[in-house]
Amino acid sequence: MRMERKNAVRQTIIDTASRLFYKQGYVNTGINQIIEESGVVKSSLYAAFRTKEEILMEYLVSSGAATDEALKTAADNGKDPKGKVLAIFDYLIDLVQEKEYYGCNFLNLIAEIPAEAEQAIKQIQKQKNGVRRLFATILEPVGKEDLADELYVLFEGALIANKVHHKVWPVESARKIAARLLS
Amino acid sequence: MRMERKNAVRQTIIDTASRLFYKQGYVNTGINQIIEESGVVKSSLYAAFRTKEEILMEYLVSSGAATDEALKTAADNGKDPKGKVLAIFDYLIDLVQEKEYYGCNFLNLIAEIPAEAEQAIKQIQKQKNGVRRLFATILEPVGKEDLADELYVLFEGALIANKVHHKVWPVESARKIAARLLS
Repeated sequence: MRMERKNAVRQTIIDTASRLFYKQGYVNTGINQIIEESGVVKSSLYAAFRTKEEILMEYLVSSGAATDEALKTAADNGKDPKGKVLAIFDYLIDLVQEKEYYGCNFLNLIAEIPAEAEQAIKQIQKQKNGVRRLFATILEPVGKEDLADELYVLFEGALIANKVHHKVWPVESARKIAARLLS
Repeated sequence: MRMERKNAVRQTIIDTASRLFYKQGYVNTGINQIIEESGVVKSSLYAAFRTKEEILMEYLVSSGAATDEALKTAADNGKDPKGKVLAIFDYLIDLVQEKEYYGCNFLNLIAEIPAEAEQAIKQIQKQKNGVRRLFATILEPVGKEDLADELYVLFEGALIANKVHHKVWPVESARKIAARLLS
């Protein structure tokens, strides 16, 4: 019972921090704002997390798992390797048009967290290596896993150019190149 | 004489702000740190710029002009349209391996400046539209200007994936796709 309550507090903190980090940025979000908006008592927050960096790490891990799951589910919509890769880009086309979308949270963070936040940077690299591995796994049955990193660069280009222009065309352009690479 | 001195102060402020914005980020840089590290008197800074946003705008315009110039000079190394495009990617391959390189300053800023900084966001879009136009201008003589936006997405993907992994392979992957698109 006590453990459940502890986990509920932890989850409330992570949910609030996730929303704030995503919407206003990590540097712009102070630990006091997380306390205020989560409605958690200050001492409970510090019992759960010693620093803002610890909250960031848990956020990265949990949002990373959700992203992995979403990409895998999207890929399953394709019936062959090429179809699976294009289904991932189709998923991005929908994603970037969602109302509460402010760009890829991992790319947003990599630009703003300080170089000293090594653990967080490593976690983001790990997350992105998962995307490279997903493309490689999809393409391996047809012997095209060499293209995985090229598709990954297109994936990142689509996300960041969408963030710059607030338009869907960069993702459509990336999808077009992916289709050509796999034809 | 007085005007020259005013311009020198302005330039000192911009130089200091540029270095700080690039190295530690815009949000992380306070106007007081700019005053301290530039050695300019507080009242002189406020005579030149009313807000940190005004300094940001001048930084974006001046670093933007330098970037445009560097990309055009790089393109001139190619002797035909395909060669010119690949010369731009070759320039990026060298750039990302420079010691003081911390990623594309415009992409770093787009991730961290708040959504309310509309003027700055517009300036970054303008800057990036210049890259799209450069590719279109290079490809127009061979009727391939339709590929400009695809090359631009590769350009951005190369820069942001390099920022994530601190490695040169994303730029080499992007160059490889560009070569294939233009063959």
